[in-house]
Amino acid sequence: MTDTLDELADRRVVIENVEPSVNGGRFAAKVVAGWPVTISADIFCDGHEVIAAAVVTGDGAEHRLRHIANDLWEAEVQFDRLGRDDISVVAWRDAFGTWRRDTLKKIGAGQDVTVEVQELNQLLAPMKARREEGTTLKALKTAAKRGDMDAILSDETAAYMSRNGPRQNLSRSETFPIYVTRERSAFSAWYELFPRSLGPEGRHGTFRDVIDHLPYVADMGFDVLYFPPIHPIGRTNRKGRNNSLKAEPGDIGSPYAIGSDEGGMDALHPELGDFEDFAALVAAAQAHGLEIAMDIALNASPDHPWITEHPDWFERRPDGTIKYAENPPKKYEDIVNFRYYLEGDAPNLPLWRAIRDLFLFWAERGVLVFRVDNPHTKPFPFWEWLIADVQAQHPETIFLSEAFTRPKVMKRLAKIGFDQSYTYYTWRNTKEELTAYLTELTTEGCRDYMRPNFFTNTPDINPIFNQTSGRPGFRTRVVMAASLCGNWGMYSGFELCEGEPLPGREEYRDSEKYELKHRDFDAEISIRDDVRLINRIRREEPAMKDFRNLKFFPAFHDEVLCYGRFDPASRNYLLFHVLIDPHRPAEFEFEVPLWEFGLPDDASVEVQDMLHGNSFTWHGKAHRLELDPVERPYAIWKLTPPGGVS
Amino acid sequence: MTDTLDELADRRVVIENVEPSVNGGRFAAKVVAGWPVTISADIFCDGHEVIAAAVVTGDGAEHRLRHIANDLWEAEVQFDRLGRDDISVVAWRDAFGTWRRDTLKKIGAGQDVTVEVQELNQLLAPMKARREEGTTLKALKTAAKRGDMDAILSDETAAYMSRNGPRQNLSRSETFPIYVTRERSAFSAWYELFPRSLGPEGRHGTFRDVIDHLPYVADMGFDVLYFPPIHPIGRTNRKGRNNSLKAEPGDIGSPYAIGSDEGGMDALHPELGDFEDFAALVAAAQAHGLEIAMDIALNASPDHPWITEHPDWFERRPDGTIKYAENPPKKYEDIVNFRYYLEGDAPNLPLWRAIRDLFLFWAERGVLVFRVDNPHTKPFPFWEWLIADVQAQHPETIFLSEAFTRPKVMKRLAKIGFDQSYTYYTWRNTKEELTAYLTELTTEGCRDYMRPNFFTNTPDINPIFNQTSGRPGFRTRVVMAASLCGNWGMYSGFELCEGEPLPGREEYRDSEKYELKHRDFDAEISIRDDVRLINRIRREEPAMKDFRNLKFFPAFHDEVLCYGRFDPASRNYLLFHVLIDPHRPAEFEFEVPLWEFGLPDDASVEVQDMLHGNSFTWHGKAHRLELDPVERPYAIWKLTPPGGVS
Repeated sequence: MTDTLDELADRRVVIENVEPSVNGGRFAAKVVAGWPVTISADIFCDGHEVIAAAVVTGDGAEHRLRHIANDLWEAEVQFDRLGRDDISVVAWRDAFGTWRRDTLKKIGAGQDVTVEVQELNQLLAPMKARREEGTTLKALKTAAKRGDMDAILSDETAAYMSRNGPRQNLSRSETFPIYVTRERSAFSAWYELFPRSLGPEGRHGTFRDVIDHLPYVADMGFDVLYFPPIHPIGRTNRKGRNNSLKAEPGDIGSPYAIGSDEGGMDALHPELGDFEDFAALVAAAQAHGLEIAMDIALNASPDHPWITEHPDWFERRPDGTIKYAENPPKKYEDIVNFRYYLEGDAPNLPLWRAIRDLFLFWAERGVLVFRVDNPHTKPFPFWEWLIADVQAQHPETIFLSEAFTRPKVMKRLAKIGFDQSYTYYTWRNTKEELTAYLTELTTEGCRDYMRPNFFTNTPDINPIFNQTSGRPGFRTRVVMAASLCGNWGMYSGFELCEGEPLPGREEYRDSEKYELKHRDFDAEISIRDDVRLINRIRREEPAMKDFRNLKFFPAFHDEVLCYGRFDPASRNYLLFHVLIDPHRPAEFEFEVPLWEFGLPDDASVEVQDMLHGNSFTWHGKAHRLELDPVERPYAIWKLTPPGGVS
Repeated sequence: MTDTLDELADRRVVIENVEPSVNGGRFAAKVVAGWPVTISADIFCDGHEVIAAAVVTGDGAEHRLRHIANDLWEAEVQFDRLGRDDISVVAWRDAFGTWRRDTLKKIGAGQDVTVEVQELNQLLAPMKARREEGTTLKALKTAAKRGDMDAILSDETAAYMSRNGPRQNLSRSETFPIYVTRERSAFSAWYELFPRSLGPEGRHGTFRDVIDHLPYVADMGFDVLYFPPIHPIGRTNRKGRNNSLKAEPGDIGSPYAIGSDEGGMDALHPELGDFEDFAALVAAAQAHGLEIAMDIALNASPDHPWITEHPDWFERRPDGTIKYAENPPKKYEDIVNFRYYLEGDAPNLPLWRAIRDLFLFWAERGVLVFRVDNPHTKPFPFWEWLIADVQAQHPETIFLSEAFTRPKVMKRLAKIGFDQSYTYYTWRNTKEELTAYLTELTTEGCRDYMRPNFFTNTPDINPIFNQTSGRPGFRTRVVMAASLCGNWGMYSGFELCEGEPLPGREEYRDSEKYELKHRDFDAEISIRDDVRLINRIRREEPAMKDFRNLKFFPAFHDEVLCYGRFDPASRNYLLFHVLIDPHRPAEFEFEVPLWEFGLPDDASVEVQDMLHGNSFTWHGKAHRLELDPVERPYAIWKLTPPGGVS
């Protein structure tokens, strides 16, 4: 177990705890192209020598680290090329830096430094000039020989030697992978709708109907438009309305039972339109600033063409029948499972490749955002391989993991490559729950690899809270989702305050998963003004981009959540108050976080009310505010501390 | 960067976060031979299959992990052989476990399981019996063929298959090193004295004088007796009393300036005695239950024999002079530094080996405990190599790191092999400071590799607190050191409440480092009764062994620290109240931590006062207590919750 002396020789300068890193470098930390990334490490050495250190990025460029405090070093680095990159840290004993520091002290104490100058000459002797700085080195060597103290100790010499001086006991950390994404991977606003519901009442909708609906979605400020599966739907064991086991004639079926004689996961539902219609939709969406997100659900209906074409891609039972999905004693006879591993635990490679090719197929048709259904019921190595392979060809692709499962499973999926993750947001309703959950997401290790996407609701989740919250609760849940998180989403109907459940369940009555829905999007109850407002604030205020700047601040009321999104670099500071209780008003004291600006408790800040537009001044730290479910369920303040404008 | 499919095939069952581990397995976690070690990992798989997992120790033995909650798995393992060991975790999909769980559910729901029995036959077919269990497998295969459900689903079959059934998608973690020490490495009580001070007044002490003094030390309950260096002392630039730069005639010098024409670090100071005397002392100490700890200070005086014998083991300056230790502009001209690296950063191997041999030299003379002076001013790779090499030959050796330096440096030394570490204890005096520091030491990552040793004082540290605390503060600092920490130590004189400083300094006036001290160990002020008591409690109460069981409990007074040392395994529960303010009494409420025993707030526990011996009952959670600097500066309670005796 003992290391050899050779290995030990290069560890004199210690480099520990390089961040960002995920599982010690086993997985990539995610960063956004163009956003500054703080890279840090603990770096130290025995004794009292001056040390220096740098981050080396995949292109070989060095970025100097600076000592912050207590052996923590940091650098800010920006990545611009999408895809895989990496970082490592190098650190060394800076012989010239030590010599200069100590010699200056000795001169200050009136000591003779004749021998120190000899030491400098020894130190310079082996140095060879790089072409562009050869003159400087030659001059320095001459100055050192002459004992020209002004030249030797000049700032210019220090700068030159910092770049070119000898690196004693150079240490190099392991290499840590980085994955560079485009901004939308970390910052996006999703709207989900069933294209088939957008026809005139009673008629199956089409892609052309969706095109007509784009202005409505774009007006609310969304940038991703996401569809549940749009493929042909199986007929065998088709589910009826409200998930009944038997479909009635005319029932359209769940789009999650994919595949019929009309095609499988690379086909379009004929009633929605053909590939030409789809291409027109993708283009029209783009013109509205919207990107289409597709649902990839690896559930085959018993009618999926692959079942006959590739019998060994599915599990069979000893009696030769195909194996349905089951959660014993329940069976799901409208869906069959893929067979990811063969005998002897060998990956079923033809299947893996076929599924990978599905993503490539849709990427080539302009879909670069994929919402993956239940990835946690498919093997992790399969996803790790698939996402890496797809992103090697299309680094702009974004994978959203729909894994409403246990925390460590959810996090693992993010580690192995999913860009975004559905979360527990719909079940985090109290001040304490929201504070604890957001603190975990923004300050712990997962912030480096997991990008939550706060959906207010989904076709599967009719949140208990909204079933009785009335309109105020829909407004606050939208505003919190969009302002607490970088990515957020809403499933159609939420803006209309739809919340009627199957009794005692967390599901929608007459779920759109099994039938067409016709909605009056202009109904008076609509909260689209709130949606438009918060999406506009997200777009216009720089502090809204990286949700990891989130901080909670004191509001002395159990039903009021107060938080800030502060970006000192752009001097952009937003403060939020949200009334959690949708039924009762709250009058409370809160603190203006003057300390965040280095201001004393009696300082003043300029404030703009982002809802009403008026501006005024808050004098001092302690203030009172009243929130009211109907009149004012939330407040958003833009703060301008003295010393400049944002 | 993409993994190959082959590599991905064996990661279906995820194993993450194996503990204990240090820097992802780069360093060994420390455990004690004979103490149970909890080994844990996060383990999970896609889907809903039953999984199973085990820890594999270095000898190949498997210890099954059990699922605790939220994908956390644990096993308790005990290591018995001193030295390097390791752990890895294996986990797999338990095909039979899944089959049995699901089949039982289906039977419970009245479903036909004919095909399930066929599946079982498929599962059993490839199994081959190991010799000792062949009969069982044969019987099971027969039962499965017959469809004998009672036999197939019996507990015996489940147990057999759990041991022998197929392991699908077997995953294996990395291997994590473990270092197994003897108990004294984690649990020891040190007493430090200068042998030369133990002579009759005015005469240089000897090893024989130390032998006479052993009963005094043993009576207080210590188990390690530690000496500052006992080697010949240099004469060139010898320091005088109170660290004056010039010694007067007759000054005996600092034992840390090692080496003269009488010998170096492998010699004994002639006035102390010869190797025969030293051997007698080691043996006599052992008879008193005391182990001798030696100080290894790698400071050579200018007179050390190695300077002439091995000129290239020391730094030289361009003018040919030897380089003294310095902290510019200060110079330490009584000490010269070793040269650990040569040109080109090559380790100075002959020197490294010579120093390693010093430890071996003393180990062969019965010294297995080493206190290392200022290890942070020597290279980390040097120590990592040296300690591993010494411990490969003498796994019983214990290295204590005297590194009063920055936190990360202190921790790195513990990671690279030091068994024990001096700490910041002497500078942690308030309730808040002590609580924060002990929480860090007992609950964070460092608990797996850093074993603090709480010294109340050292020849270099006359704590500011004790300079004005009077006797009560000496009592409480001893009791806290010994009860908050597994290892603790005291430098001679502390039990006599010595605290006179150099004015304004944290040093002792007339420091024993530069002159002989004569003490009246029977003085009335002595607190040896406290020392004896707390060392007895440490020895007799099992909960005192592993300090990582420390928990703080509410005592509603800023000057009262309340904490527990609870060991549920032995039902041994000790509760401490310590008055931090040595000048004023405190009356306060505190809570008996009934919740720790799963008891309601109105329950009762039996209590024994460990100072006065009387027993009584505490009814309910809330109680009052008065502590007084003179009468009762601390209280120690032994609790017996209902349901058994400890």
